[in-house]
Amino acid sequence: MAKKFFNTQDNTANKLILYGRHPVLSALQNPKRKCLKILCTPENAEEIRRVSKISPQIVERKEIDKLLPQDAVHQGFALFCSELPTIALEDIIARAETLENCHVLILDQVTDPQNIGAIIRSAVAFNTLALIIQDKNSPNETGSMAKASAGMIEHLPIVRVTNLSRAINQLKDAGFWTIGMDGYAQTTIDKLKKGGKNAIIMGSEGKGMRRLVEESCDITVKLPMNEKVESLNVSTAAAIVLYEINK
Amino acid sequence: MAKKFFNTQDNTANKLILYGRHPVLSALQNPKRKCLKILCTPENAEEIRRVSKISPQIVERKEIDKLLPQDAVHQGFALFCSELPTIALEDIIARAETLENCHVLILDQVTDPQNIGAIIRSAVAFNTLALIIQDKNSPNETGSMAKASAGMIEHLPIVRVTNLSRAINQLKDAGFWTIGMDGYAQTTIDKLKKGGKNAIIMGSEGKGMRRLVEESCDITVKLPMNEKVESLNVSTAAAIVLYEINK
Repeated sequence: MAKKFFNTQDNTANKLILYGRHPVLSALQNPKRKCLKILCTPENAEEIRRVSKISPQIVERKEIDKLLPQDAVHQGFALFCSELPTIALEDIIARAETLENCHVLILDQVTDPQNIGAIIRSAVAFNTLALIIQDKNSPNETGSMAKASAGMIEHLPIVRVTNLSRAINQLKDAGFWTIGMDGYAQTTIDKLKKGGKNAIIMGSEGKGMRRLVEESCDITVKLPMNEKVESLNVSTAAAIVLYEINK
Repeated sequence: MAKKFFNTQDNTANKLILYGRHPVLSALQNPKRKCLKILCTPENAEEIRRVSKISPQIVERKEIDKLLPQDAVHQGFALFCSELPTIALEDIIARAETLENCHVLILDQVTDPQNIGAIIRSAVAFNTLALIIQDKNSPNETGSMAKASAGMIEHLPIVRVTNLSRAINQLKDAGFWTIGMDGYAQTTIDKLKKGGKNAIIMGSEGKGMRRLVEESCDITVKLPMNEKVESLNVSTAAAIVLYEINK
């Protein structure tokens, strides 16, 4: 009986389950992702076979429903796989040394996996070098995060650090200009000088950055907005900021 | 018995229900909104009394739960009210005549109320004069739309037209430059000349604009994005475009 605990089937017990067409097909094409088992509905088998050597198990839609949260839009695709390997801040800094212009995004206290997923999608769209989050207060990779990223989580290095203020200081030492987003700032982001190495720091929608994190920034800026609007959703604000900084 | 059908209680039967702190408090302060009945949990009564002459009915949280879709985050606020009055395109054009620089947003085939709500929030943030949608294919105002707009639906004129191509031509005649968003366009939006009167036209995330609508545009442009990303969520793309056009 002991052997049963080591076969492939059982190894999937505590693993991440990705779902949805884009997340699953993107993960299958990412060499850094260790894929264990694929479930799909009959009409999706061919699409999977085109990108993966692992043969999918053909199941009914409701078999996939059972594995996932109630409202998960899985489109007949589910993948049991490993989380992506972690990346060290030092690796990102080493990579930035080879670049004249680049930017990273730091999130403080943003905890909703769907917001983080949506931010990852924008970060890839606007050439962000890495996303940096605090290990303790940030969710692990989840299926809903990968879904909200439309599979773009496969293309963005995510760095988990113990202390964000320390990470900001390491980036400063490496020549990054550190820019905190704050609705009460005097300057708007479009007024910043373009180019060079930039680190954008954003807090959560309601609470903003923590004081110590904000004090670590070289400058704080806001989006130029009509005063009727107190704030935007953090993923919307991040998209605009990354678009602007990527110019 | 007949009288019962005409008392205030029964008049709420087919009415819109708004929910959540921002949507309800914003609606109560909008003179164009006909408010009929307010339900709230005890801790929210004072906040409502500060902005409304209608006395709230104090209820338990689960009473509000029962009125709303399962996952509605109502925060102990519900408001029975009328939909906002419709606005004619001619009124928006008349208002634009008094302005040197302004922009409107036209949505083609965007049907998800939450996406429309999120777009409304960004439109108010970036001073959009009006949102124009096709009457037939667009959802009516809903509680989830108002929630996703964080109450900003009270501040944005929404025009429902029968034919979008005709509306685009009316705007052209009134001196608007009509700019369609299309992922396959040659030009990026940041290259456009700033200022003047602009109408931005966006399609749904998957399908884009319909051919006839696209052919009515003076120009099509795209967002400058990394090619790994096929498209952004329509509300994210709209936020960036409105930010850029508002500069």
